[in-house]
Amino acid sequence: MAGSAVFAISGVLAVTRRGLDVVGAVMLGLVTAIGGGTIRDLVVGVRPFWIADFNYVWSACAGALAAFWIGWLFRSALKGVLYLDALGAALFAIAATSKVLILTGSAPVAVVMGVLTGIGGGLIRDVLAGRQTLLMGRDIYATPILVGCAMFVLLRALVPAFPYSEVVGMALIFAVRALAIHQHLQMPLWLTAQDAA
Amino acid sequence: MAGSAVFAISGVLAVTRRGLDVVGAVMLGLVTAIGGGTIRDLVVGVRPFWIADFNYVWSACAGALAAFWIGWLFRSALKGVLYLDALGAALFAIAATSKVLILTGSAPVAVVMGVLTGIGGGLIRDVLAGRQTLLMGRDIYATPILVGCAMFVLLRALVPAFPYSEVVGMALIFAVRALAIHQHLQMPLWLTAQDAA
Amino acid sequence: MAGSAVFAISGVLAVTRRGLDVVGAVMLGLVTAIGGGTIRDLVVGVRPFWIADFNYVWSACAGALAAFWIGWLFRSALKGVLYLDALGAALFAIAATSKVLILTGSAPVAVVMGVLTGIGGGLIRDVLAGRQTLLMGRDIYATPILVGCAMFVLLRALVPAFPYSEVVGMALIFAVRALAIHQHLQMPLWLTAQDAA
Repeated sequence: MAGSAVFAISGVLAVTRRGLDVVGAVMLGLVTAIGGGTIRDLVVGVRPFWIADFNYVWSACAGALAAFWIGWLFRSALKGVLYLDALGAALFAIAATSKVLILTGSAPVAVVMGVLTGIGGGLIRDVLAGRQTLLMGRDIYATPILVGCAMFVLLRALVPAFPYSEVVGMALIFAVRALAIHQHLQMPLWLTAQDAA
Repeated sequence: MAGSAVFAISGVLAVTRRGLDVVGAVMLGLVTAIGGGTIRDLVVGVRPFWIADFNYVWSACAGALAAFWIGWLFRSALKGVLYLDALGAALFAIAATSKVLILTGSAPVAVVMGVLTGIGGGLIRDVLAGRQTLLMGRDIYATPILVGCAMFVLLRALVPAFPYSEVVGMALIFAVRALAIHQHLQMPLWLTAQDAA
Repeated sequence: MAGSAVFAISGVLAVTRRGLDVVGAVMLGLVTAIGGGTIRDLVVGVRPFWIADFNYVWSACAGALAAFWIGWLFRSALKGVLYLDALGAALFAIAATSKVLILTGSAPVAVVMGVLTGIGGGLIRDVLAGRQTLLMGRDIYATPILVGCAMFVLLRALVPAFPYSEVVGMALIFAVRALAIHQHLQMPLWLTAQDAA
């Protein structure tokens, strides 16, 4: 739930600058926070998590309202919010991978759904807000989630007795993402399309 | 079904101006009319309403074709269409809230799904048509739906014997939205983000 | 699966020109390849096809990587890829129509879902990549799919003994689309909105 509030805060902060009203801000925050998990639950065929426990929605609303009203406070601490967002993405992605692994028993499906949960909410928000989505830029956001989720299912498969595969996966996501934030890393050019053909 | 045709008409009218062909127009009209309800049904886990009764799709197609071919006729009556659209949104949103309230028993979930049904189709249409979505502007569209759905579940919870809670909710949505159309109301500035930080 | 790889290739080729990195390219290719089918499966209420057989995802990833790394090779054969894409769309759309016809028994629903499967993946890709979606242009893409799927359910209903209705539907989609590619056909002006009112 803390992750859900943090996602909503960073979601609203990312789009606030465009003459948005408070209802729109709350909706975009909500979508950022619960959108990815909702898609995941629909795809694997279970009822969306926030229907069972509506507190996720309340936390996201609270986060979005806070970001809308006292956004200046967060903005001065923008880097801190980015790190919190990385933490939230790590938590959400690994939790989703673990949930889908149990539900479907398929490791590759679990990794796909983990990544989708981690970035899905942000993608929907960017589309609704008319911003360029993170897929089109060179920011390192999806890659650490992919790597961390893959590491988690690999550990789980190879060393089933090891009890901390979740922690390793989360730590990996957070560490790579935090490094990317701290060093302003972008994808290396050889992994980026050059030509404008 | 009348609501579905009206939604399709207003959907096509909103996007027609851009060199659209007739197949694209019908698809955008269809998405506007049945998109919100489809998302609602997927989230609560029932089969989409238009699979059971395909007449919703036929009405939406008829509305979209009418708007495409004799759009000039509607456009001269554009305000009338806006009022009809407000009526359609009121009907759809309260029907959805009521349906979800019965299916899940949770009032907050029902309000969220009511709002989603009322604005979802329009959001998808705007995204597919490359227009700014209503969430980013200061037009008053989502707010009356939110208020009306909340009033409906409140009445239903507090005064269960009162048989007209649906009517009150719909009337509230329509009245606020009609007032906004008539007076060209926008969200007050103190509820709107100012800074471009 | 070949169709899924081809869809991923044409998906990545369509968006590559904008400084995309490799992870983004693979995700957009994946969405193009499996997005339409996923929506179809969610709407009719079955588990998405790629969860049961993950090889669809692997083929799409392979196609996307190939298009990203050796895109220049495909681009010199761009017309060839367009024809392959038409073949993939024909296969996917008729397979979807047939599947939904069996699952729901409703011919109009089957046609709607066939068209959605054929164009859904491309629509999501264009939205995520910030491009104008095919619905807004005058390219002939959705129309042949609509015509072919309708012809298929019509044949199936009128001449149930005829064993090649699928083949006729696919051939029709491919033929019309190939003709449109070869002759640079666009929708005739009388089927296109003129006014900028």
